[in-house]
Amino acid sequence: MSKECEQKCLRSKRRIDELIRYIKDGCSAVNPADLNWTICNLNPYIECLNPDILYHLTLDTKTTDFPKVFGDVRFVCLGGTGDRMNKFANFIIGEIGLTLSMAVQLIDISAGGHRYALYKAGPVLCASHGIGGPSISILLHELIKLVYHAKCQDPVFFRLGTSGGIGLEPGTVVITTQALDSQLRPAYEVVVHTKPQLWPTTLNQTLAKELSSLSDPCEDGYDTVLGKTLSANDFYVEQSRLDGAFCMYTPQKKMCFLQQISKMGVANMEMESTAFAAILHQAGIRAAVVCVTIVNRNDGDQIDTPPDVLKQFDLRPQILVARYMRKVLFKCDEDIVEGCPCDPVPECN
Amino acid sequence: MSKECEQKCLRSKRRIDELIRYIKDGCSAVNPADLNWTICNLNPYIECLNPDILYHLTLDTKTTDFPKVFGDVRFVCLGGTGDRMNKFANFIIGEIGLTLSMAVQLIDISAGGHRYALYKAGPVLCASHGIGGPSISILLHELIKLVYHAKCQDPVFFRLGTSGGIGLEPGTVVITTQALDSQLRPAYEVVVHTKPQLWPTTLNQTLAKELSSLSDPCEDGYDTVLGKTLSANDFYVEQSRLDGAFCMYTPQKKMCFLQQISKMGVANMEMESTAFAAILHQAGIRAAVVCVTIVNRNDGDQIDTPPDVLKQFDLRPQILVARYMRKVLFKCDEDIVEGCPCDPVPECN
Repeated sequence: MSKECEQKCLRSKRRIDELIRYIKDGCSAVNPADLNWTICNLNPYIECLNPDILYHLTLDTKTTDFPKVFGDVRFVCLGGTGDRMNKFANFIIGEIGLTLSMAVQLIDISAGGHRYALYKAGPVLCASHGIGGPSISILLHELIKLVYHAKCQDPVFFRLGTSGGIGLEPGTVVITTQALDSQLRPAYEVVVHTKPQLWPTTLNQTLAKELSSLSDPCEDGYDTVLGKTLSANDFYVEQSRLDGAFCMYTPQKKMCFLQQISKMGVANMEMESTAFAAILHQAGIRAAVVCVTIVNRNDGDQIDTPPDVLKQFDLRPQILVARYMRKVLFKCDEDIVEGCPCDPVPECN
Repeated sequence: MSKECEQKCLRSKRRIDELIRYIKDGCSAVNPADLNWTICNLNPYIECLNPDILYHLTLDTKTTDFPKVFGDVRFVCLGGTGDRMNKFANFIIGEIGLTLSMAVQLIDISAGGHRYALYKAGPVLCASHGIGGPSISILLHELIKLVYHAKCQDPVFFRLGTSGGIGLEPGTVVITTQALDSQLRPAYEVVVHTKPQLWPTTLNQTLAKELSSLSDPCEDGYDTVLGKTLSANDFYVEQSRLDGAFCMYTPQKKMCFLQQISKMGVANMEMESTAFAAILHQAGIRAAVVCVTIVNRNDGDQIDTPPDVLKQFDLRPQILVARYMRKVLFKCDEDIVEGCPCDPVPECN
């Protein structure tokens, strides 16, 4: 075995040991009083719920020991469909150096609810959110309660999705700097007792830039850009498509609208980022939205990209987030073989 | 064989013949020029789409002959989950007198999209809509285009769902008379080029009353009521629950809110009826919302009804809609064994 190969093996073993420690110790290794992270604006009545039933995830605090099962969760990744999140969960296991025994497979923990899929890949929780703000909002309420009950340490949430790009080559990855609603407000509307409230859709800029720094257009073969994301409540009319059941504007008005939002710095459109950003900001949880574009809306509305190309596009946000996770989990840049000057933790030298 | 039994067999055979005729002839039996029903406010650019790709349903007008495959559709039934709609599709086949060969099973036509499930049970199309207005709106845009391309004759749409009841025994069936948003407006907001429009959520009152007339509390063992439905964009805060991740009101304020909406005639709360009613009203399509209540919100927020009871509740809207379909398809009240005075069509006498 060459010296370089030996070093790689050693490095790989250290990673697995590190992850096994996370998984074994979970939250039990942490005294909650020592946690320097708490969920902001948490519902004061949660402690009265005995048990607390996370109805749509088919979990409750009576029959599941949350700290034991979920205490090691460091990352929570959301995507539209159960199928995508199943594939992502199996992908990320290998990316963070874990392997599944050939005798087992990941199961959908929330399958019984028929609403959201939930997979646990070591320290990475993977959930499907369905389509639109209302759908993702239910999942976020229940996942925030999950990480609270499990006493997870400062988890980071990601939304990995697809989107329509504005003037971007299909396949471009967009990291959202600001989520706007259809009225171009950086806000998510929540109506409390008939009165609308606007919750700010602030996303963590450091996290967005860190993710951006992990892209490498030359190596990757596609661009990864930072930009604003317009989050609509509708795929057709609110995104000014000409191919819905209704269309009350002309192609010229559509192009003016796309130009208007492009000038404001909007790079893409999808349907969940305002709810995702606002709810997690409300909770004081770091979050990022990473979406690949599957159509350039300046060129058309209908999505006619071949399925095998769409599958490749789907992987791109996942690859970027996997790089970030490796960096955080192993506290070093993996490309540096000799030592790890970026971080002085003993395990990494 | 007794005379009564013979009559039953004959009646059953007539039904099957009638349905086979529907299925065989499909829309080809109809000259579009003779149709006295057209979709209102239809997108004028649809004819320019060649092919038209119904992306989320994984169908397109190039590879699917819509009139041939879907031309016989008379009813379109939507429900939250793919699992529920699979069960409904298999249930409704028997209810309308059809049988599936033991060598086949219904398949999810849109399985490849991983978004919505779509089953076809003879003249009944069954689709899952996910959670919330944005999710159901995509499905409705594509289903309206589907019935348009297929030249279906005056189809009726139903939403069959679950809901939180206000002062009603869990298990009560609510037929919606009016859908209200969280601001208590009978409207669904659609933002077109940054400007909000309010689309009226008008439902067909004749249809609602007809459905109501088909219920029989003494026979059924549960109540079926007509009432307003509040459609929220959130399961927790907008429905004034005390068990979400956030809660910015007291239990007293919650009870005041429930009393306020109850006084207005609101019987239940769910998350799709405004989008469903508004989009179908816009298209001039008859529609009804039939939801069973699975919790009495005056008594609590968490859903702790046992799963087997929930399964029984799920069936109740389905049973009511099946009665309506039988009435329409066979143009007679099935309880009348001797002849059929309600309608003079030859097949029914």
